[in-house]
Amino acid sequence: MKKIINDPNRVVEDMVNGMVQAFPNQLKRIPGTMVISRQEAPVKNKVGLVSGGGSGHEPAHAGYVGKGMLDAAVAGEVFTSPTPDQVLEAIKAVDGGAGVFLIIKNYTGDVLNFEMAAELAEAEGIQVEKVIVNDDVAVEDSDFTTGRRGIAGTIFVHKLAGAKAEQGATLQEVKVIADKVVQNVRSMGMALTPCTVPAAGKPSFNLEENEMEIGIGIHGEAGIERKEISTADEIAEELTMKIIEDLPYQSGDEVAVMINGLGSTPEMELYIVSRKVQEVLKEKGIQVYQTFVGEFMTSLEMAGCSVTLLKLDNELKELLHAESLAPAFRV
Amino acid sequence: MKKIINDPNRVVEDMVNGMVQAFPNQLKRIPGTMVISRQEAPVKNKVGLVSGGGSGHEPAHAGYVGKGMLDAAVAGEVFTSPTPDQVLEAIKAVDGGAGVFLIIKNYTGDVLNFEMAAELAEAEGIQVEKVIVNDDVAVEDSDFTTGRRGIAGTIFVHKLAGAKAEQGATLQEVKVIADKVVQNVRSMGMALTPCTVPAAGKPSFNLEENEMEIGIGIHGEAGIERKEISTADEIAEELTMKIIEDLPYQSGDEVAVMINGLGSTPEMELYIVSRKVQEVLKEKGIQVYQTFVGEFMTSLEMAGCSVTLLKLDNELKELLHAESLAPAFRV
Repeated sequence: MKKIINDPNRVVEDMVNGMVQAFPNQLKRIPGTMVISRQEAPVKNKVGLVSGGGSGHEPAHAGYVGKGMLDAAVAGEVFTSPTPDQVLEAIKAVDGGAGVFLIIKNYTGDVLNFEMAAELAEAEGIQVEKVIVNDDVAVEDSDFTTGRRGIAGTIFVHKLAGAKAEQGATLQEVKVIADKVVQNVRSMGMALTPCTVPAAGKPSFNLEENEMEIGIGIHGEAGIERKEISTADEIAEELTMKIIEDLPYQSGDEVAVMINGLGSTPEMELYIVSRKVQEVLKEKGIQVYQTFVGEFMTSLEMAGCSVTLLKLDNELKELLHAESLAPAFRV
Repeated sequence: MKKIINDPNRVVEDMVNGMVQAFPNQLKRIPGTMVISRQEAPVKNKVGLVSGGGSGHEPAHAGYVGKGMLDAAVAGEVFTSPTPDQVLEAIKAVDGGAGVFLIIKNYTGDVLNFEMAAELAEAEGIQVEKVIVNDDVAVEDSDFTTGRRGIAGTIFVHKLAGAKAEQGATLQEVKVIADKVVQNVRSMGMALTPCTVPAAGKPSFNLEENEMEIGIGIHGEAGIERKEISTADEIAEELTMKIIEDLPYQSGDEVAVMINGLGSTPEMELYIVSRKVQEVLKEKGIQVYQTFVGEFMTSLEMAGCSVTLLKLDNELKELLHAESLAPAFRV
């Protein structure tokens, strides 16, 4: 295991401190917790947005904390759901009196723990609503999930629900937007290599030298198929077509596109993938409104990428354009 | 070699197309060249800024093309200087009548080819000035360099000289700022793994399973020392101290900090490094004005990082804050 760390059991602690110290004017750590919130939290009379999950997906989720996106993010251990008490701390930290909205990726542990925290918060008199993000079209159920997994499409939920909350919307209005994003966003990924959880010390699975896995999850959960590595164009076409057929996206639709690197894929390769994704969309008559290329939802140092499409209407476009000061998503 | 590509000999062509197609409202490709310019280039009466170099360092340099930063970037083959005719095309594409400023990383090929292009442009009546960036404190001369190498500090030159040019400064005024940044910026990097140039098909060097290289260059050029992997804190301290002692940065100085991932280092690890860098600076009485963490100047999928410090005064701070719409550096 070649990693730049101090202690495999202290990576999340060190990272959380590193993040708040890198952006001291924007972020703070809620003392005694693994919660990173905006420096100014709670924002009075604004719906507070909380997301989070296992660590190892950076910049998700603390990189999306900031004006226009999240109010707080909860960091679990690597690839491990945060506990309900930690999520509760986040909810309490961002409750400005207008209620708190939870953005949860669909993994059994995350859903259970966030929902338990919501109940505890409600018992303390805080109104809580939630959305469960399940954008991954690859598989219906998986190792850690009933139903579809939540992956990079989650970032669009952060962005658009965050923009809505910033406008002074009610908890219900924020939920309407978040639900609408979830209904219109689809993703799929693939990997060339596994990654190594620091505390485990060795890769969580194996891929042969000429092998890739299509539809893999962001924790290395099984995908659709393992097969010989194909060209970037073939990979891009396979991912994009599976996504298009799922919703389905249709000729005349306008979409936002996200080409997401899983960790060790050079940005050069992401642009090569993006090129073919644009070509496929053009052939299908689907118009690209805006493209995002980079690392948004990673899997430590896994090599691979995911493609995400979000179908837009005028309301969602306006929210996509709204200001964001989150360190990892400046608009 | 596990890569998401179509053809090892076509990666730069595919990438350049992918980049301009991802940001069609902001970027365009100068037909028949490997030059990416702003969509609106040339900007009348504004000094045009051109940078570039070998590919494989994405988002450098085309990701920094946009209002507030570069006017054009020239992409050479992977780890290979662009030819003088390509640089000349970039100069001609961005000349809005106020002259063109070249930002060149200090590698023998880059310097020769950019200078030759400058001469050709001057013969055509275009005023050209330049700065050579040599921020890497690791080694004095190296495989491809006389004097110090230019690495991630180059991004600060793009940003501050770009902001100055956007204000309507003259070619000489832009040069003064660029020179000032170069005088005040220092960097050093380290790597855990090599990277593979697609056309070569195998790693350009080897590091043992327990080995790292301190002071390595962004093309894998030899650094200061190969030794057993130490902790993130030890690595961060070694890089930061070498940089501090070089200028030297002193108690009371204010700096911008860049923690740069070389390609496959998880963002989690960059924040762990950043944490210790901040601690070292604090101990030395050096005040951190702003921190940047991410992938700014990569080496394909090399695992490793670099640390950059830029000493700031009020003028440089103001330029650092100025608007930038470059896809890879939004301010």
